[in-house]
Amino acid sequence: MNLFEKHKETLQNAIKAIHERTFFAAFPEHPKAYGEDAPGQGEAQFQQTRNNHFGGLNDKDATGWIGEETSPYTQEKLGVKYPEIDVATLVRNAGKAGKNWRKASPAERAGLLMDSLDKMKDRFFEIGHATQHTTGQSFIMSFQASGPHAADRALEAIALGYHELTRFPENAEWEKPMGKFNVKLKKSWKPVPRGTGLVIGCSTFPVWNSIPGIYASLVTGNPVIVKPHPGAVYPIAIVVACIQQALTDNGLDPDICQLAVDTHGNPVTKKLAEHNNVKLIDYTGGPSFGDYIEKLPGKITFTEKAGVNSVILDSVNSLDPVFQNLSFAISLYSGQMCTAPQNIFIPEGGIKTAEGNLTYEEVVQKLAANIKGLVTHPKMGAGTLGAIQNPATRERVAHAKNLGGHVVLEPEDVQNPEFANALISAPVVVEVDATNKDIFSEERFGPIVLVVKTKDTGHSVELARDLAMEKGAITCGAYTTDAGTREMIAEEMEQAFTPVSFNMVGPIWMNQNAAFSDFHVTGGNPAGNASFTNPEYVNKRFVWVGHREVI
Amino acid sequence: MNLFEKHKETLQNAIKAIHERTFFAAFPEHPKAYGEDAPGQGEAQFQQTRNNHFGGLNDKDATGWIGEETSPYTQEKLGVKYPEIDVATLVRNAGKAGKNWRKASPAERAGLLMDSLDKMKDRFFEIGHATQHTTGQSFIMSFQASGPHAADRALEAIALGYHELTRFPENAEWEKPMGKFNVKLKKSWKPVPRGTGLVIGCSTFPVWNSIPGIYASLVTGNPVIVKPHPGAVYPIAIVVACIQQALTDNGLDPDICQLAVDTHGNPVTKKLAEHNNVKLIDYTGGPSFGDYIEKLPGKITFTEKAGVNSVILDSVNSLDPVFQNLSFAISLYSGQMCTAPQNIFIPEGGIKTAEGNLTYEEVVQKLAANIKGLVTHPKMGAGTLGAIQNPATRERVAHAKNLGGHVVLEPEDVQNPEFANALISAPVVVEVDATNKDIFSEERFGPIVLVVKTKDTGHSVELARDLAMEKGAITCGAYTTDAGTREMIAEEMEQAFTPVSFNMVGPIWMNQNAAFSDFHVTGGNPAGNASFTNPEYVNKRFVWVGHREVI
Repeated sequence: MNLFEKHKETLQNAIKAIHERTFFAAFPEHPKAYGEDAPGQGEAQFQQTRNNHFGGLNDKDATGWIGEETSPYTQEKLGVKYPEIDVATLVRNAGKAGKNWRKASPAERAGLLMDSLDKMKDRFFEIGHATQHTTGQSFIMSFQASGPHAADRALEAIALGYHELTRFPENAEWEKPMGKFNVKLKKSWKPVPRGTGLVIGCSTFPVWNSIPGIYASLVTGNPVIVKPHPGAVYPIAIVVACIQQALTDNGLDPDICQLAVDTHGNPVTKKLAEHNNVKLIDYTGGPSFGDYIEKLPGKITFTEKAGVNSVILDSVNSLDPVFQNLSFAISLYSGQMCTAPQNIFIPEGGIKTAEGNLTYEEVVQKLAANIKGLVTHPKMGAGTLGAIQNPATRERVAHAKNLGGHVVLEPEDVQNPEFANALISAPVVVEVDATNKDIFSEERFGPIVLVVKTKDTGHSVELARDLAMEKGAITCGAYTTDAGTREMIAEEMEQAFTPVSFNMVGPIWMNQNAAFSDFHVTGGNPAGNASFTNPEYVNKRFVWVGHREVI
Repeated sequence: MNLFEKHKETLQNAIKAIHERTFFAAFPEHPKAYGEDAPGQGEAQFQQTRNNHFGGLNDKDATGWIGEETSPYTQEKLGVKYPEIDVATLVRNAGKAGKNWRKASPAERAGLLMDSLDKMKDRFFEIGHATQHTTGQSFIMSFQASGPHAADRALEAIALGYHELTRFPENAEWEKPMGKFNVKLKKSWKPVPRGTGLVIGCSTFPVWNSIPGIYASLVTGNPVIVKPHPGAVYPIAIVVACIQQALTDNGLDPDICQLAVDTHGNPVTKKLAEHNNVKLIDYTGGPSFGDYIEKLPGKITFTEKAGVNSVILDSVNSLDPVFQNLSFAISLYSGQMCTAPQNIFIPEGGIKTAEGNLTYEEVVQKLAANIKGLVTHPKMGAGTLGAIQNPATRERVAHAKNLGGHVVLEPEDVQNPEFANALISAPVVVEVDATNKDIFSEERFGPIVLVVKTKDTGHSVELARDLAMEKGAITCGAYTTDAGTREMIAEEMEQAFTPVSFNMVGPIWMNQNAAFSDFHVTGGNPAGNASFTNPEYVNKRFVWVGHREVI
């Protein structure tokens, strides 16, 4: 049985789920689903790789071995070294390997790529450890975000790519009546790949944010060069190794997907991005480099930069479940998610609840108390916060008191019992007036929460909408029990192309975006120009070319 | 019956045809299909409008009446005046009108727009005359290109737009198993329009090239400002009037589609294009202005600029039908089509035919003789050539003898018996060596044919491919009886994202691109960044935004 046939049912289910947008997951998120031996094997593999050369990557062109990752939990070097390959070689290899890859049919490509996900599945636990000790996420978050959730996002890209690639017929007869006779043409259409793709990763979500672009470019026939952040190489190196293995197993050139590793001191990203033969660029990271990427001439770009995410508090049934949910959304991975809320807009007149009105001050105090309760909780705190990937983030939290607002909650001192050296930062909550726009109009990456006192909900929405338009937003949370207000918020935030999570309570948070159902980033505001995974995300990677002939 | 129900079957047939890419036409191309009275009524309407204010456009904000069209057939001013509205007013009107248009459902928008095409159908003959006396096309070409063929292209945009807009559900329940319980979310998705669209027209195909962008932006919920070339306003003014009538009939603001008329001396295109509130730009015209449009920051652009179209001669069964076909493709509307062939690559060793080999010289002489025969044919010549829209085109033909090649055929002196003052230019054929790349590497708009002597077919293909990559190409013609060569040509030209018309003979030419089947311009080479009508062409005009709520 060929790989396409083997995976056909899953592919068809994924295509169906994409178009119904109901719940679907090909890769279970619970670690127990992967068998008793998997956790131990994954940890052993992680320990073996530490202070070692990373195995399984095509290293025929390596000029040396480099790597400088540090664990946010131990402050120790991981010591993993990866093949260093120069830019000209990488691009030349991609061009050469791409010649065969473009000839593979969409079904062949989809089958092979789905097989690479099966190989990745066997390494989810290793990926989890590698992610934990590069990003600072907790192990369970690392496992899920870089493992099953990422694999589902990859499958989503394969499935929508396959669907679009096979959307028009390969051949058709076109017969035009001309009165007394007919003109007949034999026509054919081909989705021709754009050319070499470059996928530039970030340090906080090295797999989840890179894998859709990798698989979207690959399924549409483009060779890919994966350029991870030098601080988070290991997790995505495993994915690239799995893809190379699947290629080699099937007699294809592993250079169809290459890993480009660099160091902080000798970065290669610009050289790659500006190379004339690189046609597609996927990018996750800061806005200023993202703006540079978007403006590169002659490139088709897919960016996720940053946004300022807002929460609009209008009215609730009961405040406790709301703030339990919101505190978790704020604290999870210390606000180092692009989807984490930053600005909480609260009307000066307070908010309505089923148990009576709460004043503005009461709401702010309750929010601070809830966050404090969560992060100081002996069983919950350290695991929710994880560790800080970049020391600059911790500095930013420390300096939040100097922003010009009133500090409502100082960052609590939280210890991780498992990792005494973990770099930890609990959220700081700062109250600012709505007139101090410059304070809350910038993304302040990390666990920094700005409570903004507004005139009323209309004012809150106006500020959130305008901010999303000007600075971008990936998510927005809103709490209201009033149907008209709900409709108003939805319509206003749509003008800023920002999705709204309404009345989130329980074990689901505004930070989370599910494959097959939630479009991650809309592509309509400055937070990014692409969306996981809408039709454009795959269609822009190839060109329909039709030939025809008189018959 | 509402408009959507009225047109539903046609819409569904169009969507089906798009995905099967078989022959489909909702608007018959034969003038007789429109009844006995239609031709006379159309001509009467044309005569009434000449030297008059153009009626039927919303002119409440007109600051004056302007118009400076000249007939290429009579050299007389048409004398038609259109409302002049200033840029700030146009953009403000669009923003205001757009607020209601975005609230109309995809079905409401599609139904209303299809109704506007029915109104346009009733004016196909007037559109034909208006097109003839602005572009210089023959009447029958004007009728077909600006009438039924354009309306079919509009329907194609409506149909694919409607299909994409309704591709994902408006609402769905998402239920995730969490072990002992399920999390349930109510989700909704909306295709949110990008914002005001600007459609910039050209002087040679004022309707056919503008109508896909107009309808694509409208069906996806964006208000549109149509900015025609000042030399060819009348034909598209009729279309805008039909759309405004359909809007008014249905209680909607006619400013959802506005006409922005300017003059050569006081152009407004840049002011419109650079306006912050203009988000989408469709453009047809010269490459340098097109490059400016593509580089405008913050705009989503759809361009058709220009290309250098090649014909590759390798081998034929019989040369006569080939050159009859090719001569017509060259001469039709005096090469003023973006799809017209310019460079004819012929191997120095000549070409194989079923009747024996022909030397290079014989092939060139036969081509020249065929063109001469066609353009001097008393019944065929003048009608095929039509008239020259822009005197600069005629100058270019006159100067072709100075290009540095060897003139094989001087432009014949052709008279149009109906229009003594018609500006006419028959093709000039110039022979150049393959080493003189600078001569044949530029688009030389108009009836200028360059015969390029190459080493062999491989050399021809290499030149055609590289030219298409560097300068763009919209079409390519190739003649070969060898299956391997055919495959090689297809693959090489695919690398330049250029469609190939193989072995065209009979009443179908490489210049023609049929709605619902042929992608016009691929969007993959410098000839343009968009394609009539691939999924990207409509998808880029709106953004998927999803909201969700815990239930």
